[in-house]
Amino acid sequence: MLVIGECINASNKTVAEAIAGRDREFIEGMAKAQAEAGADFIDVNVGAGQGTQGQETESIEWLVKTVQAVTDKPLTIDSDVPRIIEVALGNYSGETVMINSVTAEPERLESIGPLAAKRKALLVALAMGSEGIPDTVERRLEACEAILTNLTGIGMTAEQIYFDPLVLPIAVDSRQGLVTLKTIEQIKARYPEAKTVMGLSNISFGLPNRKLVNRAFLLMAAYAGLDAAILDPLDGKAMSLVRISDMLTGKDALCKGYIKAYRQGKIVD
Amino acid sequence: MLVIGECINASNKTVAEAIAGRDREFIEGMAKAQAEAGADFIDVNVGAGQGTQGQETESIEWLVKTVQAVTDKPLTIDSDVPRIIEVALGNYSGETVMINSVTAEPERLESIGPLAAKRKALLVALAMGSEGIPDTVERRLEACEAILTNLTGIGMTAEQIYFDPLVLPIAVDSRQGLVTLKTIEQIKARYPEAKTVMGLSNISFGLPNRKLVNRAFLLMAAYAGLDAAILDPLDGKAMSLVRISDMLTGKDALCKGYIKAYRQGKIVD
Repeated sequence: MLVIGECINASNKTVAEAIAGRDREFIEGMAKAQAEAGADFIDVNVGAGQGTQGQETESIEWLVKTVQAVTDKPLTIDSDVPRIIEVALGNYSGETVMINSVTAEPERLESIGPLAAKRKALLVALAMGSEGIPDTVERRLEACEAILTNLTGIGMTAEQIYFDPLVLPIAVDSRQGLVTLKTIEQIKARYPEAKTVMGLSNISFGLPNRKLVNRAFLLMAAYAGLDAAILDPLDGKAMSLVRISDMLTGKDALCKGYIKAYRQGKIVD
Repeated sequence: MLVIGECINASNKTVAEAIAGRDREFIEGMAKAQAEAGADFIDVNVGAGQGTQGQETESIEWLVKTVQAVTDKPLTIDSDVPRIIEVALGNYSGETVMINSVTAEPERLESIGPLAAKRKALLVALAMGSEGIPDTVERRLEACEAILTNLTGIGMTAEQIYFDPLVLPIAVDSRQGLVTLKTIEQIKARYPEAKTVMGLSNISFGLPNRKLVNRAFLLMAAYAGLDAAILDPLDGKAMSLVRISDMLTGKDALCKGYIKAYRQGKIVD
């Protein structure tokens, strides 16, 4: 399973302040730590709607350059604002890049889709349209179908698309764990070449022991067919389970990855 | 998910000595502790092949009576020796009882099947025939089909049967995690009324951090359709994940079971 390191995100106040204050040391440290902990991609998010768009484009330019200076891990440009994505891509010199995210909303597809297609980027696609997150598997799949049709129509391949099945809190609706898991399973069944990606934290909203619940959900999602997880790679327990899930789903030949991680002291119970 | 408490098993030397020495206090304590920790069934196993059969039938009689004296949780009679099962059932006064186990081997089916049918017992059925544990899903399913055909032919219902998909160590064959999980999934798809049950420990044989690997596998198995697990209910981490797996698979309406367990201090990270 691919790990997308989620730590450099302006929704966290400390990170937002570091970005606003151009605190190079802080951002470099966070990028390096995630890369060393095993992140395959480093997510960068400068927020939206708080500053003027001019400020945000300057911020993403600085952020992309700063992170790239200390790691060659590919970046995930985390924004739904086309201009921010465009500036990020313009300042990014790596080959592989991921954009997070598009939805089935026509105005998003039409603005972000071509950016991803032109750059041959990987693209996270949220299984939702204009009416918010659907509460059924069927309607999430309809959104995926609309996205796939649009993106393949402008030259993208299914392999480039990372569908996010989306997660609603189980404390609000007991069926939502299965809705997300079945959506993953159905996406993989319908579009075997497409990928799936998911954030960990929404499922446990409103419950105690959230991290434990999130990790349990990650394991179920791994079996359902999850290809990538957006998580905190500095969380050793979560990273241990990523490795174990690869092993249990037959992706770690001879358990070599697990045993190597164990010898490096990276398996945490 | 049902929990079958595995602690009273003569394969553990301390337990074997307690049974041989008729150590009532030890056995009573182990039965009560498992019941209080949330076991739905208490497994009782006097071993086989070490003493004479006469000794074992005396042991199972004593053990069944001793455990029943302190808990009204139903028992799982864990033996493949018809005479031991018969004596256990003869000394058991509860209504619900489980027998663990039968296989597709004709001599086992023909001796143990009728005991289960007559007593209207639940019966654990291992997905294997005379040639040991098959290494493919297909051949495990063939064993299940043979067992189901035989048992329904003598009056049992699919609901009474707990199929054990069987688990081979992933350290020996990287595909074996998926073989077990897909077997569970296929059993539930083919026989929706039948149940599934699994022991936790084989998957991690030969690996470090075995309990962590076992618990990760339990979560995947829960999503695949596991109805019951044979485990140590005194392992708070495993029991926490049993509750969380129920919640994540929609079996815990309004998360009430999880929140209650949390308030009782039973959720352990």
